Amino acid sequence: MSRYLNQRYQPLEAYTPGEQPRDMQYIKLNTNEAPYPPAPSVVATMNPKEVEDLRLYSDPTGKGLKEKLAGLYGVKAENIFLSNGSDDILNFAFMAFGQDGAIFPDITYGFYPVFGELNGVACEKAPLNEDFTLDYTAYCGKNKMVVIANPNAPTGLSIPVWQIEKILQSNPNNVVVIDEAYVDFGGKTCYPLMESYDNLLVVRTFSKSRCMAGGRLGYAMGPKGLIEDLEKLKYSTNPYNVNRLTMRLGEATVDAESYYQQMCLDVQQTRKWTKEQLESLGFTVLDSDANFLFAKSDRIGGEELYLQLKKRGVLVRHFTAERIKDFNRITIGTKAQMEVFINTVKEILEQ
Amino acid sequence: MSRYLNQRYQPLEAYTPGEQPRDMQYIKLNTNEAPYPPAPSVVATMNPKEVEDLRLYSDPTGKGLKEKLAGLYGVKAENIFLSNGSDDILNFAFMAFGQDGAIFPDITYGFYPVFGELNGVACEKAPLNEDFTLDYTAYCGKNKMVVIANPNAPTGLSIPVWQIEKILQSNPNNVVVIDEAYVDFGGKTCYPLMESYDNLLVVRTFSKSRCMAGGRLGYAMGPKGLIEDLEKLKYSTNPYNVNRLTMRLGEATVDAESYYQQMCLDVQQTRKWTKEQLESLGFTVLDSDANFLFAKSDRIGGEELYLQLKKRGVLVRHFTAERIKDFNRITIGTKAQMEVFINTVKEILEQ
Repeated sequence: MSRYLNQRYQPLEAYTPGEQPRDMQYIKLNTNEAPYPPAPSVVATMNPKEVEDLRLYSDPTGKGLKEKLAGLYGVKAENIFLSNGSDDILNFAFMAFGQDGAIFPDITYGFYPVFGELNGVACEKAPLNEDFTLDYTAYCGKNKMVVIANPNAPTGLSIPVWQIEKILQSNPNNVVVIDEAYVDFGGKTCYPLMESYDNLLVVRTFSKSRCMAGGRLGYAMGPKGLIEDLEKLKYSTNPYNVNRLTMRLGEATVDAESYYQQMCLDVQQTRKWTKEQLESLGFTVLDSDANFLFAKSDRIGGEELYLQLKKRGVLVRHFTAERIKDFNRITIGTKAQMEVFINTVKEILEQ
Repeated sequence: MSRYLNQRYQPLEAYTPGEQPRDMQYIKLNTNEAPYPPAPSVVATMNPKEVEDLRLYSDPTGKGLKEKLAGLYGVKAENIFLSNGSDDILNFAFMAFGQDGAIFPDITYGFYPVFGELNGVACEKAPLNEDFTLDYTAYCGKNKMVVIANPNAPTGLSIPVWQIEKILQSNPNNVVVIDEAYVDFGGKTCYPLMESYDNLLVVRTFSKSRCMAGGRLGYAMGPKGLIEDLEKLKYSTNPYNVNRLTMRLGEATVDAESYYQQMCLDVQQTRKWTKEQLESLGFTVLDSDANFLFAKSDRIGGEELYLQLKKRGVLVRHFTAERIKDFNRITIGTKAQMEVFINTVKEILEQ
């Protein structure tokens, strides 16, 4: 840190991304990336002409991609906001709508409290139930911004849409942000509620179910007013923040919807198999609607398992927070990767 | 605007990017993009494997690209910060270092006051001299953050490095940001001063002299402390903000340095020719060190010329600010484009 940094940001503790070690070839089950590449038709859109056109700025309005997404979801282009990954959008949401404070679960995406601190938003953490389910009544009538990942991370558990509607109804003067990063793997989306509630903002990403974590593309769906607010902040920081290639690949991705739907089904099947295998080894595994499992064993500590797996070339994500330190979050890879994972766990347990 | 937007941001006036009309095919001389594509070797790096790997996150540390840039400029990787375009970096700089206020010229990049307002930074605008040259003494001993584009935009005029050193010396408790977006077209860089001054931050972009406006890649060079501060803010908003393809293309770009140096020389030659032509038509043209010219004519108003050119398929940038409303900023395109531009100007003047 320099002596010049604004003292407001000096105590800030930045988010820690999942590790990306390069000392050996790992099976990466630690950052919830897709195990399959983008659709062949998406890969094929990338040609020398597209790269040559990089000399030109991208379209800051993202008109083409917005229209494709609007068509896919049956909304209007004015209901879509595009940005450089969903983290970017979540940060804008805390900036734009956090003036009365924010509430989110104690166990959820670790970036929310960082966005809160960065933007001077007073954050309340509502404890999840003992079994990590979410009591929606804790978010009703709060008169502050509500932020819920649905399905939640790292648990993978979902809440039903009617509970989200109750939360929307009981916080009529604040925005309710539903982070649907993982919704395509078995969750239920709530975006149609935006027709009835002007305080609903749904945040999505191409990083997981659209196999484009490295492309940096997130979008939000919501009523026109909220989208305009986000556009205002984007145009005040970095109007061109979605690059040309990503914009183009994003359009091709929407056109290849069926490929991604099939992939999400494959991931769900592999998730089911992996959960059964872990349970047969005595693990407690939460019911996940996401592309990961959250699991613990009575036979080995969470950190110990993580370290033993890493030594053997398998990366999973371990969190040190007290309530979840016995668990690991395991991204669903290909069936072959999960077979290696299960065999490696067996090997470790048998030691 | 929704009724939920934080009132702090309600009066914000966002930056207006250069227009990108699609109603016809224009000769685009309005957003300072490069007239040539990236180097053939850069275009050739883009292959299906790179696109398939988009399923994985990019390296948030940007190690490979940082090392290449450090090698090119003879600094250390710890002296390099990477982000999603230089606008992004400038915004971080206002966030991080603007607590005592900021000073910049009255005529300069129009995004600086927006970053100031967004981040609650009190901004002082120091008037340029009558001839648009910059009086460096106006920035000495200010005890606030100094932001100077060198060469300046939209004038194209530079200040010498010794004047920047005076500004650094006389503001020992504040950061001096030198925006070198256009330096490769004939300006003089000041980055070696960072060895002696821990308050110098130099901001650069791949958008102009590296033909990658659509790729969104900016970097900053500075002492380790300032770079750490910027990393802290980046890791608190969007750690993966440079996408994989851009990171890869950025590395290939550094490897193709001689291609870009030659292109910058070509642009300078075309700039010289265009300036002479405009002067022979009676225009006043500032001495530009950038990839654009700033010019006015006594025979036609600035807005009128802009509109007449647009009607004929040539886009230039006109600003409505009182002091510069007689001028237009004309990006240097290819020689062929500039010939069309000059002939179109002649045609308009002859009407």
